[in-house]
Amino acid sequence: MALKLHGPAMSTSTSLVITCLHEKEVDFELVPVDLFAGEHKQPHFLAKNPFGQVPVLEDGDLTLFESRAISTYVAEKFKETGYDLTRQQNLQEAALVKVWMEVESQQFCPAIAPIVYQFYVDPLKGVSPDQAMIDVNLEKLGKVLDIYEARLSSTKYLAGDFYSLADLHHIPYTHYLMKTPAASVINERPHVKAWWEDISSRPASKKTAEGMTFGEK
Amino acid sequence: MALKLHGPAMSTSTSLVITCLHEKEVDFELVPVDLFAGEHKQPHFLAKNPFGQVPVLEDGDLTLFESRAISTYVAEKFKETGYDLTRQQNLQEAALVKVWMEVESQQFCPAIAPIVYQFYVDPLKGVSPDQAMIDVNLEKLGKVLDIYEARLSSTKYLAGDFYSLADLHHIPYTHYLMKTPAASVINERPHVKAWWEDISSRPASKKTAEGMTFGEK
Repeated sequence: MALKLHGPAMSTSTSLVITCLHEKEVDFELVPVDLFAGEHKQPHFLAKNPFGQVPVLEDGDLTLFESRAISTYVAEKFKETGYDLTRQQNLQEAALVKVWMEVESQQFCPAIAPIVYQFYVDPLKGVSPDQAMIDVNLEKLGKVLDIYEARLSSTKYLAGDFYSLADLHHIPYTHYLMKTPAASVINERPHVKAWWEDISSRPASKKTAEGMTFGEK
Repeated sequence: MALKLHGPAMSTSTSLVITCLHEKEVDFELVPVDLFAGEHKQPHFLAKNPFGQVPVLEDGDLTLFESRAISTYVAEKFKETGYDLTRQQNLQEAALVKVWMEVESQQFCPAIAPIVYQFYVDPLKGVSPDQAMIDVNLEKLGKVLDIYEARLSSTKYLAGDFYSLADLHHIPYTHYLMKTPAASVINERPHVKAWWEDISSRPASKKTAEGMTFGEK
């Protein structure tokens, strides 16, 4: 039975899991969730994820939420197929994948998410983006990316000289950021820029990006 | 060679790793880091963690940071000793441990951390706790704990009927919260209260708590 992934392809957290599924060459059925109609707050969805957030993965009778937990599950369950995203055969490499996955979660995401939110979600509500909020978070993001720039001048990817889930988790928010004036925060840092061009041009990333049309006319 | 853990025993993120090391019955050397003197922003510390945060774990020539990544590394590396915190032998159980670890990281921690910060860190600066900030986050935390209350009425622990890293990660912040008037947010929810009394009374938790003296006279 194919995996069922509940969520819209355009959402950052859903597309994180989709990219992972493509890298692992795993078939799945995408079940749309209409966020604009508040479907994620309806009882039938809350029964799958009480926090009312996409995505949800159903694998037989196992129901999982939280995109980063789902991607790790997929990477470990389908270890025989597709690209090796977690390096479980090498304890040191696997540990560094974990470290840089946490850096994405605790350092990168809290800075980039409010910027993307301001550029994409506020206009939908008929509100102008809050420039002060963008500026504060761009400064925070710049400091995080200064550390990435140093790191990526000594290793090709974040966890080492191999692409991993740690890199992959950065793709969805950066995809949307690159379509805004704030893209300069990436483009001004040569190693970060080269890393972004590399990870976003992987076949799995490009295939996922086709569904990431949020904010497009 | 024993593991070296850099960080003060009283810090929430350091004590998270210490609790895990105790559960796994792993010897380690605790190397104090003087946060009040800004030692974590000095070059010798930044060489270990460029983000300038405790804790850092050194295991031979491997240097790791981000407490949740370190605890997972320790739990997986020392799978033969102590308590099984990750359930790697059972793919479904391991997946649910991951889900609830992410819930702690993305839902619980962002609500509880500012409350604990207000009660403990602001007074050190000679500033009164910001009651409005506490109230906003207590409401957020209450909503998260409503979901925990429902979950813990059907399973004994967050990931299932077994204690795991998902529960353990909640201990440090809750330890400090319970010494403040905001403890009512736990005590008012019977299943959450029973869960807290259970996980905080484990020998590893009690041993770690001896070093968690932040804010005590």
